[in-house]
Amino acid sequence: MRFSEETRVSDLGERGVVDLLMGLIGESGVNLLPHPDDAVAVKLNGRVLVFKTDMFAASTDMPPMMSFYDAGWKTVIMNISDLACKGAIPLYFIYSMGVPRDFKLVDVLETVRGIRDAAFKYGVKVLGGDLGECKELVISGFLAGSCPSGRLMPRRGAKSGDLLAVTGCFGLTAAALETFIRGLKVDEKQLQLFKNTLFKPEARVKEALALAECGAVTSIIDSSDGLLESLLELAKVNNVGFIVEELPVCDHVREFAEMFNFKLEDLVFRGGEEYELVITLKPEKLEDAVRAVEEAGGVLKVIGRVLDRPGIFYEGDNGRVELKGGGYEHFKNDI
Amino acid sequence: MRFSEETRVSDLGERGVVDLLMGLIGESGVNLLPHPDDAVAVKLNGRVLVFKTDMFAASTDMPPMMSFYDAGWKTVIMNISDLACKGAIPLYFIYSMGVPRDFKLVDVLETVRGIRDAAFKYGVKVLGGDLGECKELVISGFLAGSCPSGRLMPRRGAKSGDLLAVTGCFGLTAAALETFIRGLKVDEKQLQLFKNTLFKPEARVKEALALAECGAVTSIIDSSDGLLESLLELAKVNNVGFIVEELPVCDHVREFAEMFNFKLEDLVFRGGEEYELVITLKPEKLEDAVRAVEEAGGVLKVIGRVLDRPGIFYEGDNGRVELKGGGYEHFKNDI
Repeated sequence: MRFSEETRVSDLGERGVVDLLMGLIGESGVNLLPHPDDAVAVKLNGRVLVFKTDMFAASTDMPPMMSFYDAGWKTVIMNISDLACKGAIPLYFIYSMGVPRDFKLVDVLETVRGIRDAAFKYGVKVLGGDLGECKELVISGFLAGSCPSGRLMPRRGAKSGDLLAVTGCFGLTAAALETFIRGLKVDEKQLQLFKNTLFKPEARVKEALALAECGAVTSIIDSSDGLLESLLELAKVNNVGFIVEELPVCDHVREFAEMFNFKLEDLVFRGGEEYELVITLKPEKLEDAVRAVEEAGGVLKVIGRVLDRPGIFYEGDNGRVELKGGGYEHFKNDI
Repeated sequence: MRFSEETRVSDLGERGVVDLLMGLIGESGVNLLPHPDDAVAVKLNGRVLVFKTDMFAASTDMPPMMSFYDAGWKTVIMNISDLACKGAIPLYFIYSMGVPRDFKLVDVLETVRGIRDAAFKYGVKVLGGDLGECKELVISGFLAGSCPSGRLMPRRGAKSGDLLAVTGCFGLTAAALETFIRGLKVDEKQLQLFKNTLFKPEARVKEALALAECGAVTSIIDSSDGLLESLLELAKVNNVGFIVEELPVCDHVREFAEMFNFKLEDLVFRGGEEYELVITLKPEKLEDAVRAVEEAGGVLKVIGRVLDRPGIFYEGDNGRVELKGGGYEHFKNDI
């Protein structure tokens, strides 16, 4: 990568910059989840500890209708989803929050209520928090978790012939965002569903832990950047491709696409802020994996296969098409 | 504390708001360093793990002459100092960084070089980092450390009759800041000293660990908010007061005060961004503590005593005076 004194972070995008930074830092030699995994893990006293930090900044991560409570909630979910996705039990949460000096006290309190409630829902203890001054609301969450030895699930490991599976449907957050941004008219029930989808996301913790225990997973990522972006990332890390043969979509999204003339594939593949698990697994372990996730109260749907060549393909009614990038990435000018 | 819909965080100040937030969250029941300690600790597998997060925001924490390298460096030191201060060995560091989209790539790289080098100096492994978009440079550091059982040193524990001691001199950062802000003329050697003091702070890790091992400490805080603010905080937490009988000051600061007509006590007590340890200890353990710190390569100086009544007093050549608050606190309008 060539760059000059004048190169801006937006010229490279988040991933490009993070790649450079990790090269600068170098591998620690003790991290069991090295870059490009997005959490870290170390052995300590015969246990594997997993750490995750993720930052929420209002100017980037807070759409117009989101409340401060939702912002706090989402910060916790972002961290829990990434950590659980590695097979770790989320345990302890602390945060650093920055706000402008004229920020309303009640809004700080609401933010922390959101943090508290989201953590409580997943049995995570909030141990403390720090407050500082910043030009905008910034919440930096830190989560520590624990993982029995041998149960870590990294991004690296998918092989040609593995199955591709997900823990739920896609497209609802994209439909919700389009509704709010464009002011589309939907009925009250749908509006409530969209609000919940977008502002009260849930993390697939039980599903992830069940999968970690059954040993079927060869690679895993959460879909917070959208299904397509998640597939592109897994493909890049593992030097493989994917074919999607079943569109993981629910009736709500189908109806929405028809009603407002959206392309169904765009809603499903190019959304984001969804916290489903996207996994590859050994075909012979499929039954075990499905049963494990069902026993945990979730669902696991096979939607395709891992290919030995690059590219993300969707095989729909109109034949096979290749899907090109364009999910959400910080700083990328073309989004 | 009464507040309305219109109350701003600046009406309460950082500590007031954090007190409210901790009330909202409630005690977790598992944190061995409950509020108002500024790191948290949990037992896991017979070991005590200590976690710390602290955020650096450019608009608040970055004086004009500070480089991006220094900003990264300082973020790590802030976290290491607070964690080591609890008696924990700092081990693993991760960070979330937010920058504007037109931020220069070379400046991001410099920031991370500062992070890397500061961590390396203290044997801390940087395991990873996350990058996001924000209105200004924000670096949120997270540090994990480990502490043998029984060695945690909390803020709470000082008793009347205990001695008050510090690990170094005070006033150099205040002198440095005044020099840079007012453009005072000092010689090249002094300028270099001031720059190092302000922009390449060190954390008293060896000293803290030696103190934790010798068991002499009854309460401890690092002086990042200034000596007086640290004493006020320890006094409040422990319901005691302090009398300072020896001014912990070096010749550089004495000369500076004389040359530019500053009140020596103001420089010593009302500075900040110093990372000395401020401790109370059992008088009968003084020799052990001094020896332990010296063997670790540091110094420990007794500067006063713990009183059984409130107030911070300084007994100088002109008799005893009471020192009132006014160190640095986020959001406080009167600073």
